[in-house]
Amino acid sequence: MTVAPAVPDAIVAPRHPGEPLGIVAGGGDLPRLVAAQARLHGWEPRILAVGDGIGAAWLPDDAWPMAWGRLGNAFAHLKDRGVQRLVLCGTVSVRPDFRAILPSLKTLAMLPQIFRVIRGGDDNLLRAAARAFEQRGFELVAVQEILPELLMLPGAVGGALPSVADRAALRRGFEAAGVLGALDVGQAVVASKDRVIALEGIEGTREMLQRVADLRRRGRIGPTERCVLVKGVKPGQDLRFDLPSIGVATIEEAAEAGLVGIGLSAGHALVIGIDDVMAAARAKGIFLWGWTRSCAEEGSA
Amino acid sequence: MTVAPAVPDAIVAPRHPGEPLGIVAGGGDLPRLVAAQARLHGWEPRILAVGDGIGAAWLPDDAWPMAWGRLGNAFAHLKDRGVQRLVLCGTVSVRPDFRAILPSLKTLAMLPQIFRVIRGGDDNLLRAAARAFEQRGFELVAVQEILPELLMLPGAVGGALPSVADRAALRRGFEAAGVLGALDVGQAVVASKDRVIALEGIEGTREMLQRVADLRRRGRIGPTERCVLVKGVKPGQDLRFDLPSIGVATIEEAAEAGLVGIGLSAGHALVIGIDDVMAAARAKGIFLWGWTRSCAEEGSA
Repeated sequence: MTVAPAVPDAIVAPRHPGEPLGIVAGGGDLPRLVAAQARLHGWEPRILAVGDGIGAAWLPDDAWPMAWGRLGNAFAHLKDRGVQRLVLCGTVSVRPDFRAILPSLKTLAMLPQIFRVIRGGDDNLLRAAARAFEQRGFELVAVQEILPELLMLPGAVGGALPSVADRAALRRGFEAAGVLGALDVGQAVVASKDRVIALEGIEGTREMLQRVADLRRRGRIGPTERCVLVKGVKPGQDLRFDLPSIGVATIEEAAEAGLVGIGLSAGHALVIGIDDVMAAARAKGIFLWGWTRSCAEEGSA
Repeated sequence: MTVAPAVPDAIVAPRHPGEPLGIVAGGGDLPRLVAAQARLHGWEPRILAVGDGIGAAWLPDDAWPMAWGRLGNAFAHLKDRGVQRLVLCGTVSVRPDFRAILPSLKTLAMLPQIFRVIRGGDDNLLRAAARAFEQRGFELVAVQEILPELLMLPGAVGGALPSVADRAALRRGFEAAGVLGALDVGQAVVASKDRVIALEGIEGTREMLQRVADLRRRGRIGPTERCVLVKGVKPGQDLRFDLPSIGVATIEEAAEAGLVGIGLSAGHALVIGIDDVMAAARAKGIFLWGWTRSCAEEGSA
């Protein structure tokens, strides 16, 4: 028995071929993948680039770079293009400075709401952004409703298996990730079976892993201490956006940090490019483990 | 009403002038201060340097550098010098590698216990080390029993005062530090009133503050976001060692990170060199706040 996945089987399909799908696209590989797959499934992607997504190389000509001060215009922009449903995906690592906001006329009345959006933890930010869109009649769709094949599976995915000690490290990591997530801080933790090594703040997973690599180089982590990366869904988080995710780069960064494996919440985390991720994990000797309550309790791979 | 301090008034004095006081000295300024003050109070310090403390410039000629593999000899060394009571203080940032331990004959039988000492979180490490000493008849004394003047006071200490928003940041920071400490990870957190910015893993407070300085330089923290450093005692931690502490360097590192203030558990944290710390805090415009339940609830400085 496994924990129910965020979305069991349902795929959200376009109501008619070429239905516009709004994609509010931050940074990273996920928005590009979502746009490409959505098109394959018959959607016509309409992209608003935000935060780290602005200026991304893959963006089509008609992508609209949305500065925070123009959020009001974004709604009109999407409605004019027939968008009813949209996806929020990708990373937004730099929060706008309040003082840098030069609001457009349409945005002026929304300033209090925008301020709510750009304050607070990541989860608050996304919840507030989602609410702003929903209040204007848009329907939010989760990435995994369009691309359920991205959802992490339970158990050993790929080559290597976690040892008994490694599963103790996973357990410790998920325990820490749970309390971290409950505080709406990060989703990622590095742990060994004996201790928690690093916790993700606003710096993000990549920089946390660079820190761990540095700690290992300096002998602050012994050469025999087997450490794992854990990315867990936040307790009670809205599963329609900001699921924990990994890609090929995560495997490489984990290998650089000397980690032996990665644990993800099965059914509540995204693997971006599973074939490449598995190949990279095999090449680096890193296990991938889909964490569920039952996998934890049964305790054997 | 304030939370009872770790040690209200009691000063542990030597039973006779020149009673030897064992000092198991890690890195940082604290062991040197403890040795100097203990001597003023009539003790004769006997120093075992461990971890980061080995090779420290201030060490007197008769300080004994204790490699982990010679823990067994340490007991005999201290007993031969008439030590009955001892203090554990200072930092031990690099854990010994199991494979690097070449135990002496006296230590061989203790290997399982040594392994317990050097595994687990910091709090586990210290608890296990304390137990090893106590089982051999030594009495552990807390730093604040010898130097109660180091204990942080409640409320505003020094110049600047936290604003209402700053106290909200302190509240958020102490909440996060509490759950962090319950997991036996770090004691330190950086937070603003809206979010937790960084959490201390094994890297220590200094490196966490360097990370925050870097995040601010790169715009990941806005110039108007007022952030505080919080160092809290771990729930249920043994108050005889490893109290959270700050010194002048902490103020400088906090200023470098653009922080507006520092919160410490009143009565459960050490300020190393209060006059210099206050002068540095005034010079940098950083407030110092001793956190207690009542200071939190009354909410006004």
